[in-house]
Amino acid sequence: MNGSGTAPAVPRPAYRRLSVEQRRSQLLAAALGLFAQRAPEDVSLDDVATAAEVSRPLVYRYFPGGKQQLYEAALRSAADELEQCFAEPESGPLTQRLGHALDRYLSFVDQHDAGFSALLQGGSVVETSRTTAIVDEVRRAAAQQILRHLGEPEPSPRLRTTVRMWITAVEAASLIWLDEDKRPTLDELRDWLVDHFVALLTATAARDPQTARVMRAALKGEAPDGPAGELARRILPVVSEAAHLL
Amino acid sequence: MNGSGTAPAVPRPAYRRLSVEQRRSQLLAAALGLFAQRAPEDVSLDDVATAAEVSRPLVYRYFPGGKQQLYEAALRSAADELEQCFAEPESGPLTQRLGHALDRYLSFVDQHDAGFSALLQGGSVVETSRTTAIVDEVRRAAAQQILRHLGEPEPSPRLRTTVRMWITAVEAASLIWLDEDKRPTLDELRDWLVDHFVALLTATAARDPQTARVMRAALKGEAPDGPAGELARRILPVVSEAAHLL
Repeated sequence: MNGSGTAPAVPRPAYRRLSVEQRRSQLLAAALGLFAQRAPEDVSLDDVATAAEVSRPLVYRYFPGGKQQLYEAALRSAADELEQCFAEPESGPLTQRLGHALDRYLSFVDQHDAGFSALLQGGSVVETSRTTAIVDEVRRAAAQQILRHLGEPEPSPRLRTTVRMWITAVEAASLIWLDEDKRPTLDELRDWLVDHFVALLTATAARDPQTARVMRAALKGEAPDGPAGELARRILPVVSEAAHLL
Repeated sequence: MNGSGTAPAVPRPAYRRLSVEQRRSQLLAAALGLFAQRAPEDVSLDDVATAAEVSRPLVYRYFPGGKQQLYEAALRSAADELEQCFAEPESGPLTQRLGHALDRYLSFVDQHDAGFSALLQGGSVVETSRTTAIVDEVRRAAAQQILRHLGEPEPSPRLRTTVRMWITAVEAASLIWLDEDKRPTLDELRDWLVDHFVALLTATAARDPQTARVMRAALKGEAPDGPAGELARRILPVVSEAAHLL
């Protein structure tokens, strides 16, 4: 409307120039936002173009393979982000480190919501052996991080299996949590999952010498006012019924 | 070669007359046998016809929807069989009942092998929202049976979630077990999974009054020479390191 002026034109945001990498990230972020709200089969490339405020041909230029390629790229990007969640310095009580990693993981779950559910629940039209492989890679990365913190790069089969079982159980709990309107609170869920980790490892320690060694070392590093201490004190009245078993 | 005799003809097994239901069961059994050995995408209707010693048109007559229909019918049949595994009388210590159900479940896993893995690992070409729904139904049936044995038809969210987490962890352990040439033995795996059940419920009991009530009642029914007693005695030396936490 003011086209006769001499002032430099202010670029409109929708047409701002982005590098290839920036544009790709922008499209992936828009896609992840949509996948967080609805099932992958209900997200079209048109929707992504609208959400990112770009033209449909531009989306196709970046993802010539269509929705499947976009979905896999978005998944890849989410997987990378998720793997970052597991990085944690090797200091402090083990339950505290696990709690920090779970905080980041559960925030990711909270943020990606429907996309996280669709991915893990299976049966989606966009699920392929490639998407399954990406998810498995994230699980493996999580297991490796935990074993590193446990100080066992060469874990016994039982220790390794226990860690993988707990990771699967955490996924199940996350899906149920999303399904039940995110109750209990994220903090309560985190504390509970840490308790489960301690309980599973303790049970495995009863049958596996390596796990027993790991647990003894880990328990020494725990503080009385930390999660392991609280768990121990809360469990005592329950297991006092089991005195006849000893 | 002896066609001129007057003795009644002995029917050849491949052409014996079966009722529709018997024939259908025979084809499903043949299909399940093949799915146990290789991935669903590597099983053709020809293979099923060969394995069942019938003609290909006959397989198509029973499953006009082709492989997808056959796979879903085989899955349905396996799911029914699996749900039978969970039926257990409500008497005796809880860990014993759980052990019996796990014995049957793990025998099923042992027997169906590759088919079980393919089904649960996802990303298969025959996986659809319908197959996912069948698997979820089995999980729900397992959870209901367990809650019935715990005497809690109206479980608290935490109790229900814990049971579902354990079921998921059992599935994960089963897949790892198949992947690791079925080691440890089925009996050792069963005992270990029972231990994990006791440990998870005990951890949840620390934060959930209903679960605490269930656990107290269950522990009273356990025998000193049973799984819970053995677990308690084996755990003691490990948690003795945690005295500073109390």
